[in-house]
Amino acid sequence: MAVAALRSEDYDLATPHGARLAIRHGLHTGPTAGLANGSVQGNLAILPKEEAEEFLRFCVANPKPCPILAVSEPGDVAVPQLGRDLDLRTDVPRYRVWQDGECVDEPADVLSWWRDDLVAFVIGCSYSFESALREDGIEIRHVTENCAVPMYRTNIDTTPAGRFHGKLVVSMRPMVPADAIRSVQITSRFPNVHGAPVHIARPDLIGIADLGRPDEGDAVTIRDDEIPVFWACGVTPQSVIRSSRPRFCITHFPGSMIVTDLRNARLSVL
Amino acid sequence: MAVAALRSEDYDLATPHGARLAIRHGLHTGPTAGLANGSVQGNLAILPKEEAEEFLRFCVANPKPCPILAVSEPGDVAVPQLGRDLDLRTDVPRYRVWQDGECVDEPADVLSWWRDDLVAFVIGCSYSFESALREDGIEIRHVTENCAVPMYRTNIDTTPAGRFHGKLVVSMRPMVPADAIRSVQITSRFPNVHGAPVHIARPDLIGIADLGRPDEGDAVTIRDDEIPVFWACGVTPQSVIRSSRPRFCITHFPGSMIVTDLRNARLSVL
Repeated sequence: MAVAALRSEDYDLATPHGARLAIRHGLHTGPTAGLANGSVQGNLAILPKEEAEEFLRFCVANPKPCPILAVSEPGDVAVPQLGRDLDLRTDVPRYRVWQDGECVDEPADVLSWWRDDLVAFVIGCSYSFESALREDGIEIRHVTENCAVPMYRTNIDTTPAGRFHGKLVVSMRPMVPADAIRSVQITSRFPNVHGAPVHIARPDLIGIADLGRPDEGDAVTIRDDEIPVFWACGVTPQSVIRSSRPRFCITHFPGSMIVTDLRNARLSVL
Repeated sequence: MAVAALRSEDYDLATPHGARLAIRHGLHTGPTAGLANGSVQGNLAILPKEEAEEFLRFCVANPKPCPILAVSEPGDVAVPQLGRDLDLRTDVPRYRVWQDGECVDEPADVLSWWRDDLVAFVIGCSYSFESALREDGIEIRHVTENCAVPMYRTNIDTTPAGRFHGKLVVSMRPMVPADAIRSVQITSRFPNVHGAPVHIARPDLIGIADLGRPDEGDAVTIRDDEIPVFWACGVTPQSVIRSSRPRFCITHFPGSMIVTDLRNARLSVL
C-alpha cells in the first residue's frame, strides 16, 4: 500500500505532540525556540546507568544549572510524565554525541547510538521563564534580535559529585535596572527552570572578560542604560562533560531542545 | 508626695512600649535603630486635615516610597492600631517642624506645635526589611559601620497628587551581586516597608553623581566587588514637602522613628 509523503502541514507545530512528530520525521530541523508556545522545553543529558547514578547526584547538588524535570527508566526511550508518544532518540532536532569528553557526532537522531543501559535527564530550560518575562512586558534581547541567547563559561565551580565536576555556564540577558529587579521577582517563581539569576551587573567578577564573545550562542546588543543579568544555564552539563570525560554521553545541541507536554505556567511555585 | 526621678533603667528598651516611654521622658534621645528589636518602626508625616486629604492621595499614588502603615483620626495623638499608649507628640526622639517648605524647628517633642486638625501618616521604614536581610546573613554596611543609611535625592519624579510633588529619595546598601539578587527576593515579601529595590548597580542613571556624598545620612564603604542597591525611602515625603511647601507640617528627624507594637516578621506577605 502506498504511503503519502509526510508534509510539515500535516503537523501542528503549535502543539507539543505535533512539534515532536514534525521533528521526528525531519520536517523541523532547526532551533526549537517558538515551537508549541506555552509548553516546557528541556535540556537533555543521556548517560549509561553507571555514570547516571553519579550524574543524578551532581544534578541534586547543583539545582540552579541542573534542575531536574524528569529522569527516564534505564533503556526506556519514552518519558511518559513529560509527554505522550515521546521518543528520546528522535524528538530533538539535533543531538551531540560525546566520547571521553569529546563531541564526536552532531546527528539529527541517535537511533544508531542508542543502548539499553541509557538513562535520560531532562533539565529545565530558560525558555520557560522567558515566556513569563515577555508576558510581563520585558524585552528579551536575543528574541528581538532573532538569535540564540549568549552563554558564557564562568570561573564558578559547580559542586562536584562522583566523577562530575566543572565550571558553571550562564546565559545573559541585558536589561535596564528596573527590569532586572522585576526579572529577579519573576524568575524566583520558577526554581525548576533555573530560578532567580545567579549574578548581575559585573561580568568581571565571574571570569567573563568580554560580553561580546560568548562561548555558546550569539552576542547581543547591550545598551548604555542596561546591565547584564546572568542565569545558571542548562548547557552547564556539557561543560561538565568536557571536564569530567565520561566514556559515553548524548546531549541536545544547544538551542535544539526536547519539547514536552508540560505547561510553562504550571512550573510557577507561586 | 515626692516622685522619684525617672531613670533609663526603669524602661525596657527591648519592648516597643518601654522604648516609647523612655523617649517620651527624655531618657532616649538619639536614633531609634536597635530599639525594641523585631518591632516595626515608622516614618512620620503630620499635616493639617485639608492638606492631609491630598497627601493621602499622594501616598496611595506612590506606594514604594510612601507605604502607609496607619493614618490617625484628625486631632488624635494616639494611633491605637500601631501601639498602646502611643503619643504622636512625644514618642519620637526628634521631630522636624516645617512651615512653607522650610524646616523651622527640630524639637524633642511637638507639644507646643500640636493642633486639633492634625492628621498623622505613619509610613513603613526600611528597618523592617533590614532585619529580614540580616537574619538571612546579609551584611548591612551602615549597621556594620554604625552610622545612618546613606540617602540620595534622585532625578525620578514621584507621581504628583494635589499640591504634592517632588523627587524620589532612595536609600542605598552596597552588596555583592549574589546578595543583591537575594535581597530582591527578601524585600519583595515586604511591600509595606518599601518592598523590592527600585534601582540597582548604576547610580548615574538616576541622577546620583557621587555615592560618597549622600543628601541625608552617612557615606558607607563600597568594596570593589560590590554594587549599590537602591530602595525607595521614607524620607521622600520630606523632599516632597520641600518642593510642595505646605503651610505647616511635622515629620520625624531622619533616623529618629516612631516605634510601634507591630512585628516586622508579620509584615511579610509570603
